[in-house]
Amino acid sequence: MTTPTITTFAWVPEFAQGFVRDIRARWAFEETGQAYQVDLIDGPYAKSPQHRRFQPFGQVPTYSDGEVEIFESGAIALRIAEQGKGLLSDDPAARIRAIQWLIAALNSVEPWVMQVAVVDLFEADKPWSAARRPKVIEDLRGRLNDLGAALGDRNWLDGDEFTVGDLMMVSVLGGLRNTDILAGYPNLAAYVARGEDRPAHRKAMADHLAVYREAATA
Amino acid sequence: MTTPTITTFAWVPEFAQGFVRDIRARWAFEETGQAYQVDLIDGPYAKSPQHRRFQPFGQVPTYSDGEVEIFESGAIALRIAEQGKGLLSDDPAARIRAIQWLIAALNSVEPWVMQVAVVDLFEADKPWSAARRPKVIEDLRGRLNDLGAALGDRNWLDGDEFTVGDLMMVSVLGGLRNTDILAGYPNLAAYVARGEDRPAHRKAMADHLAVYREAATA
Repeated sequence: MTTPTITTFAWVPEFAQGFVRDIRARWAFEETGQAYQVDLIDGPYAKSPQHRRFQPFGQVPTYSDGEVEIFESGAIALRIAEQGKGLLSDDPAARIRAIQWLIAALNSVEPWVMQVAVVDLFEADKPWSAARRPKVIEDLRGRLNDLGAALGDRNWLDGDEFTVGDLMMVSVLGGLRNTDILAGYPNLAAYVARGEDRPAHRKAMADHLAVYREAATA
Repeated sequence: MTTPTITTFAWVPEFAQGFVRDIRARWAFEETGQAYQVDLIDGPYAKSPQHRRFQPFGQVPTYSDGEVEIFESGAIALRIAEQGKGLLSDDPAARIRAIQWLIAALNSVEPWVMQVAVVDLFEADKPWSAARRPKVIEDLRGRLNDLGAALGDRNWLDGDEFTVGDLMMVSVLGGLRNTDILAGYPNLAAYVARGEDRPAHRKAMADHLAVYREAATA
């Protein structure tokens, strides 16, 4: 295995800074203390056949380490967790529960979070978005109610141990950073703050944002 | 480990029959030749604290085998794949690629498929759905174009070996069964037909549907 390399965008518009999914990979590397390299690509390259060979949807990040070449931030985070220590328990039951939360973040929470970005951003200019927004928020609140009840007063979703499942859930909920929605869920807001305050997340986010600061001053 | 038990609904409306996610677990059990039991629950129980303790969102399926108790069809399919043979390669690189496709199905394809159900079914009566539908279909077509290009003329996403990633992708695309959308993507339509024609899928689907036939004649 060689030093893992991830791809991310050399530049993104300001609204996307702090949200590109390379943060998930960076955070996992930092939590497990693994060195990594970043390959900065531009939009046209992301849509090229060369990149699509490993990322069919023309997105970032991708990951390669000499042994595997994969896409999907969830699979990348899992690979990084499996290659290091600190994000996945050795206990088989705790391990699959962590993976359960990772998949719950991606399949049972993120699609609802994403619809907020759809109405507020990607389809903000569409005639239906204003009328649709309350339903989008209501549906998301249903998910957050359930998730908040599941978290209860625990530090992390599975108890005292931070796992790759928390990494993904905090990252997904962090997608609401520019809204006031989480304020209605104090334990979830505290959970996200706790996750984002981890040294590994702070380092990952700083390194992510530095790319765009450098691009702006280049 | 005891014989695994999954939960699913004792009854669902006709439009949901053939689509409940217990099919994914059933299919994985059949592919790997593992015996399993089914615990039929009703809607009120699904929303009860007892069930939510293991499925925060009040949904099905859940899975328990004496060692682990989990939810999320993706995590359940992975657990079943890991406990048996036939859905996950022993080769580490092929294994993580299969997981990559499983997660791609759940995070990069299903949210777009789900929006079709939202406009056609769950929000069919909302004033914005008719205006919004073309955009939903356009976005989904973008995803299907990319996925179809990635599949190319291969039998399965990673080549000749059917994996848990194909199981999940076929199941997600099967969500379009009542539309004509896949007809525009002959290789994807053939891929779904190939997956659904596997003996394990046919058995899983028949067992799933039998629950509702029995409920109707009870």
